[in-house]
Amino acid sequence: MEPINLFDYEKLAQERLDPALWDYFQAGSEDEITLRANRTAFERIRLRPRVLVDVSSIDMRTTVLGMQLGMPVMIAPMRCHCPAHPDGECASAQAAEEAGSLLIVGSFASQTIEEIAEATQGPLWFQLYTYRNLEVSEKVVRRAEAAGYRAIVLTVDVVRRGHREKDIRNQFNLLNYSSLVNYSAEDVAATPTRLQHLVDTWETVDWLRSITKLPIVLKGLLTAEDALLAVEHGVEGIVVSNHGGRQLDGAITGIEALPEIVEAVDGRSEIYLDGGIRRGTDILKALALGARAVLVGRPILWGLTVNGREGVRHVLEMLHSELETAMILSGRPTLASIDRSLVKLPLDWTSI
Amino acid sequence: MEPINLFDYEKLAQERLDPALWDYFQAGSEDEITLRANRTAFERIRLRPRVLVDVSSIDMRTTVLGMQLGMPVMIAPMRCHCPAHPDGECASAQAAEEAGSLLIVGSFASQTIEEIAEATQGPLWFQLYTYRNLEVSEKVVRRAEAAGYRAIVLTVDVVRRGHREKDIRNQFNLLNYSSLVNYSAEDVAATPTRLQHLVDTWETVDWLRSITKLPIVLKGLLTAEDALLAVEHGVEGIVVSNHGGRQLDGAITGIEALPEIVEAVDGRSEIYLDGGIRRGTDILKALALGARAVLVGRPILWGLTVNGREGVRHVLEMLHSELETAMILSGRPTLASIDRSLVKLPLDWTSI
Amino acid sequence: MEPINLFDYEKLAQERLDPALWDYFQAGSEDEITLRANRTAFERIRLRPRVLVDVSSIDMRTTVLGMQLGMPVMIAPMRCHCPAHPDGECASAQAAEEAGSLLIVGSFASQTIEEIAEATQGPLWFQLYTYRNLEVSEKVVRRAEAAGYRAIVLTVDVVRRGHREKDIRNQFNLLNYSSLVNYSAEDVAATPTRLQHLVDTWETVDWLRSITKLPIVLKGLLTAEDALLAVEHGVEGIVVSNHGGRQLDGAITGIEALPEIVEAVDGRSEIYLDGGIRRGTDILKALALGARAVLVGRPILWGLTVNGREGVRHVLEMLHSELETAMILSGRPTLASIDRSLVKLPLDWTSI
Amino acid sequence: MEPINLFDYEKLAQERLDPALWDYFQAGSEDEITLRANRTAFERIRLRPRVLVDVSSIDMRTTVLGMQLGMPVMIAPMRCHCPAHPDGECASAQAAEEAGSLLIVGSFASQTIEEIAEATQGPLWFQLYTYRNLEVSEKVVRRAEAAGYRAIVLTVDVVRRGHREKDIRNQFNLLNYSSLVNYSAEDVAATPTRLQHLVDTWETVDWLRSITKLPIVLKGLLTAEDALLAVEHGVEGIVVSNHGGRQLDGAITGIEALPEIVEAVDGRSEIYLDGGIRRGTDILKALALGARAVLVGRPILWGLTVNGREGVRHVLEMLHSELETAMILSGRPTLASIDRSLVKLPLDWTSI
Repeated sequence: MEPINLFDYEKLAQERLDPALWDYFQAGSEDEITLRANRTAFERIRLRPRVLVDVSSIDMRTTVLGMQLGMPVMIAPMRCHCPAHPDGECASAQAAEEAGSLLIVGSFASQTIEEIAEATQGPLWFQLYTYRNLEVSEKVVRRAEAAGYRAIVLTVDVVRRGHREKDIRNQFNLLNYSSLVNYSAEDVAATPTRLQHLVDTWETVDWLRSITKLPIVLKGLLTAEDALLAVEHGVEGIVVSNHGGRQLDGAITGIEALPEIVEAVDGRSEIYLDGGIRRGTDILKALALGARAVLVGRPILWGLTVNGREGVRHVLEMLHSELETAMILSGRPTLASIDRSLVKLPLDWTSI
Repeated sequence: MEPINLFDYEKLAQERLDPALWDYFQAGSEDEITLRANRTAFERIRLRPRVLVDVSSIDMRTTVLGMQLGMPVMIAPMRCHCPAHPDGECASAQAAEEAGSLLIVGSFASQTIEEIAEATQGPLWFQLYTYRNLEVSEKVVRRAEAAGYRAIVLTVDVVRRGHREKDIRNQFNLLNYSSLVNYSAEDVAATPTRLQHLVDTWETVDWLRSITKLPIVLKGLLTAEDALLAVEHGVEGIVVSNHGGRQLDGAITGIEALPEIVEAVDGRSEIYLDGGIRRGTDILKALALGARAVLVGRPILWGLTVNGREGVRHVLEMLHSELETAMILSGRPTLASIDRSLVKLPLDWTSI
Repeated sequence: MEPINLFDYEKLAQERLDPALWDYFQAGSEDEITLRANRTAFERIRLRPRVLVDVSSIDMRTTVLGMQLGMPVMIAPMRCHCPAHPDGECASAQAAEEAGSLLIVGSFASQTIEEIAEATQGPLWFQLYTYRNLEVSEKVVRRAEAAGYRAIVLTVDVVRRGHREKDIRNQFNLLNYSSLVNYSAEDVAATPTRLQHLVDTWETVDWLRSITKLPIVLKGLLTAEDALLAVEHGVEGIVVSNHGGRQLDGAITGIEALPEIVEAVDGRSEIYLDGGIRRGTDILKALALGARAVLVGRPILWGLTVNGREGVRHVLEMLHSELETAMILSGRPTLASIDRSLVKLPLDWTSI
Repeated sequence: MEPINLFDYEKLAQERLDPALWDYFQAGSEDEITLRANRTAFERIRLRPRVLVDVSSIDMRTTVLGMQLGMPVMIAPMRCHCPAHPDGECASAQAAEEAGSLLIVGSFASQTIEEIAEATQGPLWFQLYTYRNLEVSEKVVRRAEAAGYRAIVLTVDVVRRGHREKDIRNQFNLLNYSSLVNYSAEDVAATPTRLQHLVDTWETVDWLRSITKLPIVLKGLLTAEDALLAVEHGVEGIVVSNHGGRQLDGAITGIEALPEIVEAVDGRSEIYLDGGIRRGTDILKALALGARAVLVGRPILWGLTVNGREGVRHVLEMLHSELETAMILSGRPTLASIDRSLVKLPLDWTSI
């Protein structure tokens, strides 16, 4: 099968991957209510296309935190690049550069901060999970700065790992597939309850601000209340996200939370949307509701699994092509022209 | 099987057609969300029938742009008549005449403008896709005028073809089934990116107005905003349509968009509804929401495939019979009596 | 299988009946949207039971047009009693009497008006389809009066028969199963287009009023508008009904139409609900929304098919028992205590 | 299979149990509309998690009627402990004590009031079904008092048993599995229509108040109206419940009824939620809507069936662990921090 959309890559990747690893990629937490909702939420938004607009020239270039992107799409931070394909994050970073996207390198990336930076000329962001011992975390931030990373993305929705029951049944241990190459054995030993650190608070944000001049992005917010706090704490970016349905099952979808966050932030921070993006029209819907760009996660791993750097680039190119078509067919030739009037939301998104 | 409704013709046509051609007929774009919605939208509208009305005489005759129709149904412009049946558009036009309907001949019809005109005494409309070289387009408009066509339908929602993935997987090329008989090789050569012309704007409407005295109908509007512009640009008719779910996937359905357009236009243009009509009650619902007539597409090709002119006529007669029954059973003996109070809309059609 | 609810009788009846006759019993019109909605509408209503009410004595006796019923349930007029069981209407009438219900004898009953009247001491109502020649209709009304029938139910929603496609595919002719024993060959000959008479209007109601002193019930109303007209024309009862989903497909359900009709009529006529009643809680819901009693149709034929008079009585007794339990468990020991606060309606029943 | 959630215990228990007993455990009444709704209601509530809250210490300890619980979960009164496992209520009581929960011993428990009390140091509540002869009921209340039970839970929604059709088809008689060990043959003989006593009213509550100083909890309320009456009659606790979908089919779910009851009671009584709890997030949702604690029923029997006391403890521990994770991931480290802003309710829960 010649893949023609992201779902094709999903099928192809499944054929190639060890079932337990596949489950790890795909799993949501507990009953996977939120995982499913991440898709159905997009399918329930209706588009109101305009016609007879001059769409002879489509421009989807944008900036995120001042960096140029060829399309409003970034690669979400994930740790599984090498398990998907030996070329790992380097391949993804190169594909992102080629496609005008941007890779957010995960804290637990399977290649080192430095080698990924050397592999690409494109902008890179670094995603941070803090360690209980903040010196360990500061050390990786310093390395990212030194390697030319341009922003720090602090993930705030994994103070404990969600119950991903597929992984539990599979007795899955990602460390069998991918080691924490960016941390020394010493560092890891110093922080025994790694993911269950339970220590991130708004003080962590202030600490991060205090140790770096890089722009700070918070990933994992789902409420206007927290977005306002983020603004107060001076962050430059917010990723509205439920962590791909992998953390709190039953959590609201990002796309549904987006309007209230956009309204509350009122331009004082950039806002990105993460979760469930599979089509150009999904991007269009997110932009119409006020996102500056979207993050794409699992589909990148599917592309990487199937065809390495080429696969990732193809996934991004298909999104580019689909978004271009969607902009043309909805009469929105520029990102600025993608406004709230383009979408009609499900009535039950009204708050009660 | 003796077909007794339009769905029967669907099954019979599928049995007879080359699978790839069948896919082309049926395909929607991408995930076919809009294609499915075109049917479910009708099924969700509830009818509020009146009783003890004098329905001894049912009159469903109407006019469209001043032309007499025996029923408020037109045949949507499509290019696939000859691939469906060798008698092609001529058969459809004759069936339309017999049934009191009207054929809108497609720009890329599989028979010539002139031979179709000669085949019928009934009114014909001509649907136009503009070419980048407007002289090519003007030439076909002139031929349509000369052949006695009575209106020009400018399709405005195909500035790029939607991603119909069935066709892509089938490597389907309609030109293998049907050539562009109304354009010379020269003309086609002069316009290399035929469907991706990306050039139609409201100026195209003004240009069309400047070159013809025929009434102009815009096909493919889905918003009140565009309907108001259409009125400002002086068009005589609007076809509310999402192109049968073949263009922007996720687009709102025509029947759902209809109320806001009817309200905005406020009688300054005729409004027709296209997409998903399969039953007499669907027509009734569209009329109740303010459409003057509806367009029927795929079912015509099914009838044509199964039984040529007789099949098309039977399809139209079944719609006539079903609409008649629906008018009788809802206590609406005339088109004028079909008012907004006949329908109860799904609550989630409310705008948010 | 020992039947313990109405659905069990449905299965048992299907096993016993000629498939074409079964289809005739069950069929809805066209896509059977309304047929299905008749059931789902009830399932979507939520009950708000009260507790610690004195329910030591349950009283579900009521009157309809002044006649005593042991339970608020009547048997809907149908023509198929004899095809279901040789004992026909007589058996159903006797079962109704035993169960404290009431049979509405159909115009096209399979036994004569007189023999049914002789079979029971219970009250009977006569349902009328008017003939184009009103003298024919007057004649049967006179016979019903003479035989002691106590009300005339004029069915107003069959000015044309709905498209029941199962019957069409089966080339079903009910006359092969049941002749019109209450009309002479002469009478029938005098009215060639029997069901397609297309002549009933409010004048028919006035005519009926002019020829009989019996109370008049109109069956087949679904709107407040028509209910108000019914009140103006002085009818004593209204059956809110979509004819079991057999007439206008897409018509609103009776239970959904009931509130607006009850509000409009404001006590000036009795209101009954017909369509989809299969459980005691369905009756409870109808009463809570203002119906004085309900009509049950198909389940009576199922009971009759399976076990004649005993079967009908059992069906009615099960409804009695279920309603009794429902009244007890909802804290409503009397019909008067069954009020609007007992039900929470689906939000989408709100009118738009 | 190593069970990792409550649904796993459901499957394992089904494998082990006599099918008729399994049916008895699982059955809802009639069409099981309410039984299913008890689950889907939870799945439709969306969570709005907060982030960067200090969740380093999670405290889910609470009190019910002044008694300390390690988690806001109690075991609903049920009669089937011994049929599930020979260790019966004693095992469940011990597991509850170990897990920081509390057993509500059923009136028709399969072990005696006294032996259960001896088996545990934890608090116990006693659930009462009144007998027609109140002296019989007073006698068991006195025994419960003497044995150190700390509250009386009067179940008010079983004035008649709901139609659980699985049991009827199975000709199921629970007395074949479990005798009424807390009542003498004499007592039972004195009250021939045991469950159909039909005599509980608010006077029963007053009577209960008059004979005991223990706090009184009413189980089975679903409306604000009744909750207000409960407050007027001075009860200390209310269990919002539809009896696990086993009584009035079509009854509103407890979780949907909870908000109106919480608002009406306004703190004048403790409020607990029963029905459909299977996940820690379900508990979180109930608490966010104002419940002080929840009751869990069937899953306890599943755990007991599979592994006796260990099984019950494991079920409770999994709920504890899931609730802990849910509190962490929603940024609610204490029960006090679980507020209404955590949940977004389905729009159709609005009253009409």
